[in-house]
Amino acid sequence: MPTYALIVEYDGRPFVGWQRQPKGMSVQERLEDAVHGFCQERVEITGAGRTDSGVHATGQVAHLALAASVDPGRLRDALNFHLRPSPIAVLEARVMADSFHARFDAIGRAYRYRILGRRAPPTVEAGLVWHHPHPLDVERMQAAAQFLVGRHDFTSFRATACQAKSPLKTLDRISVHRRGAEVEIRAAARSFLHHQVRNIVGSLVLVGAGRQPPDWIAEVLAARDRRAAGPTAPASGLTLVDVVYPCWSSRSTT
Amino acid sequence: MPTYALIVEYDGRPFVGWQRQPKGMSVQERLEDAVHGFCQERVEITGAGRTDSGVHATGQVAHLALAASVDPGRLRDALNFHLRPSPIAVLEARVMADSFHARFDAIGRAYRYRILGRRAPPTVEAGLVWHHPHPLDVERMQAAAQFLVGRHDFTSFRATACQAKSPLKTLDRISVHRRGAEVEIRAAARSFLHHQVRNIVGSLVLVGAGRQPPDWIAEVLAARDRRAAGPTAPASGLTLVDVVYPCWSSRSTT
Repeated sequence: MPTYALIVEYDGRPFVGWQRQPKGMSVQERLEDAVHGFCQERVEITGAGRTDSGVHATGQVAHLALAASVDPGRLRDALNFHLRPSPIAVLEARVMADSFHARFDAIGRAYRYRILGRRAPPTVEAGLVWHHPHPLDVERMQAAAQFLVGRHDFTSFRATACQAKSPLKTLDRISVHRRGAEVEIRAAARSFLHHQVRNIVGSLVLVGAGRQPPDWIAEVLAARDRRAAGPTAPASGLTLVDVVYPCWSSRSTT
Repeated sequence: MPTYALIVEYDGRPFVGWQRQPKGMSVQERLEDAVHGFCQERVEITGAGRTDSGVHATGQVAHLALAASVDPGRLRDALNFHLRPSPIAVLEARVMADSFHARFDAIGRAYRYRILGRRAPPTVEAGLVWHHPHPLDVERMQAAAQFLVGRHDFTSFRATACQAKSPLKTLDRISVHRRGAEVEIRAAARSFLHHQVRNIVGSLVLVGAGRQPPDWIAEVLAARDRRAAGPTAPASGLTLVDVVYPCWSSRSTT
């Protein structure tokens, strides 16, 4: 039973999220169907990050075990063939140790959040950004974000539905910068709580819009109360860009 | 009759192109309908570049004259309201001299062409790139492209349907570079022949794929024969990014 890792990109718009659900099409189910289409095996595919409905990925990692041994390049191409016309692509397949687990072995995850900061609505980028029609002060957002770096109780930025045992997480890096009309937020940690990035973004935008001072973020963090923070930013702006494993070089670009 | 310039962004996918046509929805018609929705005036809107079906724009410029005088910010917002849900956005409206003509007064146009150079098909970028599944040598493409800079007879890169009086054009700049898995080609000139950028890209890709040497582009140019060049690259990868006017600073980003 050789084990394969898949590096997967998808447009989250048409899906109920990564994880298989009773109603609606998930990325996981669509990938499992593609495996069946290719080799008639019914397997379970496990992803490193259970992205929500509408959240995108350029570097999701998943694993599966097949009865047959297949060349990884052939597996990638065959899955891409059977995934059509869904907006999911296997960028790479790798043969892994049998014990490899995409979720439990991951030692880092990186997300990008895109905000379109201009009056006019998005066109080409509709569904890929959060449209924020009022000016945002990126320097204030960057200053505010730095209060979150390190090991903290992130209860204030955690979805009420979050199933993690502990609200303690270590945020390794977070940065806010402008790219043309866009504000881009990048965050990296070993793992994140449910909605953690979107809740952080929703609060940083209040700082960027001048409605809160940068050190308000420190107060929100200390409050350990979801009601102290800003709203949850929409799924559309969020992309899982990278998952890191020991002895697996990071794929993050720019 | 105050004259306004509009800087317009659109996703070209759902449209028959910029220009109004008997069948199918054009960007021009959709904008004219939005003006009518706003102020009940039936006007003609003239664009600087008549982009083809499926070609995108982030910096198209158009002009119109209105009977009423309107604040440009209000005009922009009102048109964006009436353009919904079409993927067209007015980024900016400016009051111009009555004599301003978006097409005839333009002294520069810039296009970007995006090629996704990887095995796996595009997902998020589907319809916005040309998918080329085999490796491309960007340095060879860049070297080949430089043969085209300057004033030349571009008959070899001109669509047979092109209505321009002369095939003589001056290509001011062209560059080819890699951005992650993408190859990006940027070209700037006072004006272009019909399909000129797409025909140049189709030929550069033959060089990048190793099927022709870089100086083959010089031979193609000298042949003054459309059949000497490569195929027309698909519309999906092309975006009109900038139009330049005298005393109007360039909006080109990065």
